[in-house]
Amino acid sequence: MAAASNVPGAQTPSMHSDRRVTFSLKAPDATSLQVAGGDGLGMGPFPMTKGTDGTWTVTTPPGVPGFHYYWFVLNGVEVNDPASETYFGYGKETSGIEVPETGADFYAIQNVPHGEVRAKWYLSKTTGEWRRALVYTPPGYDDHSTTRYPVLILQHGSGENETGWTRQGRAQFILDNLIAAGKARPMIVAMDRGYAQPAGTRAPLPGPSGWLQNHTSFEDVVVHDLIPMIDASYRTIPDREHRAMAGLSMGGMQTLFITLEHLDLFAYIGSFSGSIIPNIRTANGTPQLFDPKTAYGGAFSDPARFNKRVKLLWLGVGTAEEDDFRAQISGTVETLRKAGVRLEYFESSGTAHEWQTWRRGLNDFAPRLFR
Amino acid sequence: MAAASNVPGAQTPSMHSDRRVTFSLKAPDATSLQVAGGDGLGMGPFPMTKGTDGTWTVTTPPGVPGFHYYWFVLNGVEVNDPASETYFGYGKETSGIEVPETGADFYAIQNVPHGEVRAKWYLSKTTGEWRRALVYTPPGYDDHSTTRYPVLILQHGSGENETGWTRQGRAQFILDNLIAAGKARPMIVAMDRGYAQPAGTRAPLPGPSGWLQNHTSFEDVVVHDLIPMIDASYRTIPDREHRAMAGLSMGGMQTLFITLEHLDLFAYIGSFSGSIIPNIRTANGTPQLFDPKTAYGGAFSDPARFNKRVKLLWLGVGTAEEDDFRAQISGTVETLRKAGVRLEYFESSGTAHEWQTWRRGLNDFAPRLFR
Repeated sequence: MAAASNVPGAQTPSMHSDRRVTFSLKAPDATSLQVAGGDGLGMGPFPMTKGTDGTWTVTTPPGVPGFHYYWFVLNGVEVNDPASETYFGYGKETSGIEVPETGADFYAIQNVPHGEVRAKWYLSKTTGEWRRALVYTPPGYDDHSTTRYPVLILQHGSGENETGWTRQGRAQFILDNLIAAGKARPMIVAMDRGYAQPAGTRAPLPGPSGWLQNHTSFEDVVVHDLIPMIDASYRTIPDREHRAMAGLSMGGMQTLFITLEHLDLFAYIGSFSGSIIPNIRTANGTPQLFDPKTAYGGAFSDPARFNKRVKLLWLGVGTAEEDDFRAQISGTVETLRKAGVRLEYFESSGTAHEWQTWRRGLNDFAPRLFR
Repeated sequence: MAAASNVPGAQTPSMHSDRRVTFSLKAPDATSLQVAGGDGLGMGPFPMTKGTDGTWTVTTPPGVPGFHYYWFVLNGVEVNDPASETYFGYGKETSGIEVPETGADFYAIQNVPHGEVRAKWYLSKTTGEWRRALVYTPPGYDDHSTTRYPVLILQHGSGENETGWTRQGRAQFILDNLIAAGKARPMIVAMDRGYAQPAGTRAPLPGPSGWLQNHTSFEDVVVHDLIPMIDASYRTIPDREHRAMAGLSMGGMQTLFITLEHLDLFAYIGSFSGSIIPNIRTANGTPQLFDPKTAYGGAFSDPARFNKRVKLLWLGVGTAEEDDFRAQISGTVETLRKAGVRLEYFESSGTAHEWQTWRRGLNDFAPRLFR
């Protein structure tokens, strides 16, 4: 059957019951065509075979459940599949394939009350530009006009943008379902574009290199522009006990750096497959030793005080992520626990550096917030 | 300079001061590459020339100001430009190029109060599916918690979807600017996907053929699902004197058919470059004679009564649209006026069946609503 990630009416990509996927593209004049994509699709690229009508097809081995970016390689050029919706990743609009997970309905749209996802434009003093945040307001927000809500700032990964958590991640449905089941407290979720450059300078390329060069600019956006705007525009509870930040991959790096520098603003912290950079101010690409006395400006140097102030420190990773990367995260967890820092550690079974890991992460993380 | 429609960091498409556009794509192994696109880009397709580094480029003649869809033709296959944001058109995610119009700032994001664009999921009884409407709420909506607002239902064209009016059309900025200048009354704008198929049947292909086969299903969605949902979810003034419907192209066809059948629900009507189909129930593709006595179920048969009930009937077209099409609309205008029907007729100078025509149309139409 047609994949859920297709544009309406498109019959391929087609999903088989064993999670194999058939891709096709009409290209009579192409001389070479392959399909390639994210980890969960398998090793790839998969050569496609040309039929007599000029349509090329291939059926890939069973994919890992979840969302995977993919693309065609048409005479050497990576191009989108016109049959797929597009999802912002790799710094561009990219095709994506949703492989269903049997029995997993926590990110499905269900017959429960739904929140809204609001596009909110605001002028950033830091960057001098109009920025767009996407803001999830929980079910009933407009009906309970005096109720105030806690806030989660939730950031995407490198090469993605503020649309990632709702398009690829289905965060709004995860939260709708958790809230309907009484498992998570109704909350506002603010998602912004994780790139920033000081006013008057050139726009950075998306991705970690652009971000690392300007990491304090995005910090300034969050602290001086985004949080005040959210608190002024929505019925928030504007204190640290009711403010969380989390992010995936690059967004996890950013979350750790920003929250641990600003514990006056945040009491809940989540890093989903985020690199651990113990001292961002001297980061130069070489691995840094994680010393709990000095890491992150000494945020962990007094574990008892940290445990009292920080209601939740949550680190997660997928078991199919690269060994070195997993070891970095699990090693940090071990070091911190040994030092007496209280934290939650989550592993997503069988998933790689992909959205299924982070959907599951959010489903574990959100219920622990604001309790 | 980089076009406003590019993804962040992409240097091409590049806009010249005389509105010529330079396109480029790295494709060392391609044997044929062209760029083609919407009317406003010129006749096309434009052959591209391969440089020594494998990058193909072309500079097209000055484009008409506004938004134009475009695509590369790579060894015979229409593909997106990875350097462009994507915009849903032609039933798929398509590249687009924004050609600036000197002196036109009515659709620019300006330093004025901004409304929100809210993604709202709702269950349609008609189709049995979860649908997503996009809902513009005007600046201050959340701050004035007892104020109620009139509603405009605003529909996209064939092959497009509910994102068209805000992504390609910049309707939210047009309304923000009009409202800030005191030229339009603050209003709610609901944008839905203009395709519908009865519950239990297969999804239609986007476009007029799919729509014509199921035109009463979308009518049912608007009348029985969308309007009640909007009135239940937002602070509307839920009567016909405070409800408008408008649309472009296919959306204009739909607007005329739906509103003229349901004058108990609508007092304001706008058709932006919409085909005139005097009797949808017997439409079979052959032109129909427009007889004001019988057209649209006799809605115009008593002009005095029509003029009293309908506060605004607005028809528009671009002067660069096809002659036959313009004649159909201007002929209808003439016939209706001769019969004594009061209406507004708007021509967009020098623009074709494209978004600049409809941006200008909305800028003329919205100030006339709910007065």
